Amino acid sequence: MDTSDASGTAAASTALLTDQYELTMLAAALTDGSADRRCSFEVFARRLPNGRRYGVVAGTGRLLDALADFRFGEAELAVVARFLDDRTLEWLRGYRFGGDIDGYREGDLYFPGSPILSVRGSFAECVVLETLILSILNHDSAIASAAARMVSAAGDRDMIEMGSRRTHELAAPASSRAAYLAGFDATSNLEAVRRFGVPGAGTSAHAFTLLHSGPDGADEAAAFRTQIEALGLGTTLLVDTYDIAKGVATAIEVAGPGLGGVRIDSGDLGVLARQVRDQLDALGATGTRIVVSGDLDEYAIASLRAEPVDVYGVGTSLVTGSGAPTAGMVYKLVEVDGTPVAKRSSHKESRGGAKSAVRLARPTGTIVEEIVYPMAGPAPEPDGFEARDLSVPLVRGGRVLDDRPTLRESRDLVARGLVSLPWEGLKLSAGEPAIPTTFLQ
Amino acid sequence: MDTSDASGTAAASTALLTDQYELTMLAAALTDGSADRRCSFEVFARRLPNGRRYGVVAGTGRLLDALADFRFGEAELAVVARFLDDRTLEWLRGYRFGGDIDGYREGDLYFPGSPILSVRGSFAECVVLETLILSILNHDSAIASAAARMVSAAGDRDMIEMGSRRTHELAAPASSRAAYLAGFDATSNLEAVRRFGVPGAGTSAHAFTLLHSGPDGADEAAAFRTQIEALGLGTTLLVDTYDIAKGVATAIEVAGPGLGGVRIDSGDLGVLARQVRDQLDALGATGTRIVVSGDLDEYAIASLRAEPVDVYGVGTSLVTGSGAPTAGMVYKLVEVDGTPVAKRSSHKESRGGAKSAVRLARPTGTIVEEIVYPMAGPAPEPDGFEARDLSVPLVRGGRVLDDRPTLRESRDLVARGLVSLPWEGLKLSAGEPAIPTTFLQ
Repeated sequence: MDTSDASGTAAASTALLTDQYELTMLAAALTDGSADRRCSFEVFARRLPNGRRYGVVAGTGRLLDALADFRFGEAELAVVARFLDDRTLEWLRGYRFGGDIDGYREGDLYFPGSPILSVRGSFAECVVLETLILSILNHDSAIASAAARMVSAAGDRDMIEMGSRRTHELAAPASSRAAYLAGFDATSNLEAVRRFGVPGAGTSAHAFTLLHSGPDGADEAAAFRTQIEALGLGTTLLVDTYDIAKGVATAIEVAGPGLGGVRIDSGDLGVLARQVRDQLDALGATGTRIVVSGDLDEYAIASLRAEPVDVYGVGTSLVTGSGAPTAGMVYKLVEVDGTPVAKRSSHKESRGGAKSAVRLARPTGTIVEEIVYPMAGPAPEPDGFEARDLSVPLVRGGRVLDDRPTLRESRDLVARGLVSLPWEGLKLSAGEPAIPTTFLQ
Repeated sequence: MDTSDASGTAAASTALLTDQYELTMLAAALTDGSADRRCSFEVFARRLPNGRRYGVVAGTGRLLDALADFRFGEAELAVVARFLDDRTLEWLRGYRFGGDIDGYREGDLYFPGSPILSVRGSFAECVVLETLILSILNHDSAIASAAARMVSAAGDRDMIEMGSRRTHELAAPASSRAAYLAGFDATSNLEAVRRFGVPGAGTSAHAFTLLHSGPDGADEAAAFRTQIEALGLGTTLLVDTYDIAKGVATAIEVAGPGLGGVRIDSGDLGVLARQVRDQLDALGATGTRIVVSGDLDEYAIASLRAEPVDVYGVGTSLVTGSGAPTAGMVYKLVEVDGTPVAKRSSHKESRGGAKSAVRLARPTGTIVEEIVYPMAGPAPEPDGFEARDLSVPLVRGGRVLDDRPTLRESRDLVARGLVSLPWEGLKLSAGEPAIPTTFLQ
């Protein structure tokens, strides 16, 4: 057992982020020649979780990077040699995805049955990518989909993602990235700052205030004084360690009315925000912002709409997808040598054939329908609607295309997507998808 | 923005798996000398999620490895230099945790308020570890706690973890490890095989059967024949791509009655398992095992108790913690220079002072109570009960102690823990923790 690298950091290769059955299927397919058949696999979600109205595609950028690192070196081959024959090992040694991938743009909305990714090539080269593709898209899309609901509930107030402590240490920066994509303004996670360029942010913890106490008891003023001295007047002081009203009074006493912000992390946030706002205003600190945190989800955020909150700090519910920690996307074989194939057993039917999609919008920009059609066939062009192509080329002959959107461009796409939804689509309550999807044969 | 390593793989250093506020608090504490105060931080869970009866501590081994890699090299310093002063940067450059850590053994049960980890040293050296510690323990404990309920619901039937596609690509091997710790028998995830030595397993996907079809239609027999040829008679054939009864008939026709197993992945698993068992027996395949999968959680597993199922394959619900994707543990400052400290604001009270714990058991081995007591004070020794020390030394003077349990030893500890629970403790329904906890002052 290798325990030298047990921290969760992985080797550069992503090839073992794979389920064993993909490689045993490969081994079997190599014995009868079926490994070379031309196949299309499709990523889609059968449904949206918990009556959600829309989903947000996220992770595509990370996936395309991980695809480039999907190589079997000697270290990876040594692991799979325990259950694979020599022919399969030789095949893996030379593996490099050489097929084509089309898919929805990162940041685009999706609905049940949307052909989010279409992967085409030999059975062998496509089948081994299932787990890598689904892990990344299911995780990142789950986070982005939850985040978008929070962002839309928050209106134009600022949102800080601070959930790193509530998820796997390397899922944390990916969550920060997905939250930023969906419209969050900043993250507490430093690895997300480094790796993805997400803006960093942070306030202070109760530990810092508690640290400034001794045999004579608490000394909140000393903690605030030190924080301001070190970090400047723009910092945010955490005022709820002892008594909030006293905490606010002490904060302004120490900082003066030019203090950047105060954070409330417990109690009835709506009531407290209003009390603190009144107190700050009475002290002349009319520009001091109020940051609230503590078990916020999209519903709590929405319920604070009428309260004087400036910034939401969101943790647990963000990184756990607010009740839907995985997007439930699947990777299904839909076409073999040009012929559509589909599973027929109950409850898990799939639609055969490689597909593309367009989304129809009224001249006002409000979307009304998604149409999924055979990739080979002509794109539908209904009268009176603008039809936007949803499936764009991502990989050709194994080469990742150069015109990938930046994270910021994908973030803009999410924002435009939210604006394009019919008003029912932005409701937080459970219901039908915001628009219907039509499947053309 | 660095996008060269966007796959989710991290650099060797774990130092940036950290929330920004830890470093700004450090910077502030360095300005007034409070950074050097001797502090105790404690990891505990205020409650168990969703009325669970117990939790399972997991991740300690991964954490101790990650701790050794918590170093600020030039790459990490360049990121934090954007918001930190030179003195803080110099301090981080030389950082190496030099304090002491005690904690529950990996695999031990825990309850609300259990002092799962006690971290002691200067404020500075302890405060920067919050996120790393909580990310790992919250993730792994959430998965192990859910997994243990599934294992206990499954009785002595085999369990395969196959959830990699439903979680972050690097959370997946950590989930496999946590599931194995809790009593699962194998995993589909190859990185977990490599990194943690978890036994690997796998069957086949619908894609493989669908691949063996062409202009003349489906050819399930060809798929089965190839799989058996390549992987041997012990393999498990997936029989529900088209019609299950026909699938089973074809499987035995092709393989003979010595076939290793068949898998059912859809439909009413209980009804189907019974029908398939009858059919297999009638065909003489009395030793062919039945593997079921498809949206199984602990409740579905328990409901199949009376059915002829041999192996459960569990995916989504395992890696998402079956409704509790994070364990909700917190990292709180509890003592400064020998004086207990505690937050006083509403709903998030904490108990001051560094603590140890013992768990009391009847002579039969059934546990009855947990007692949390001041670390400095004498351990309670109540009459008539065996009192087992729960807090053991893990790190001394920054050095990880050598007598760490192996993953298999921790797995045995979980198994012994489940046996030690009073019978109500194994109920799947929501309720009180299996044993009460007493806090001595």
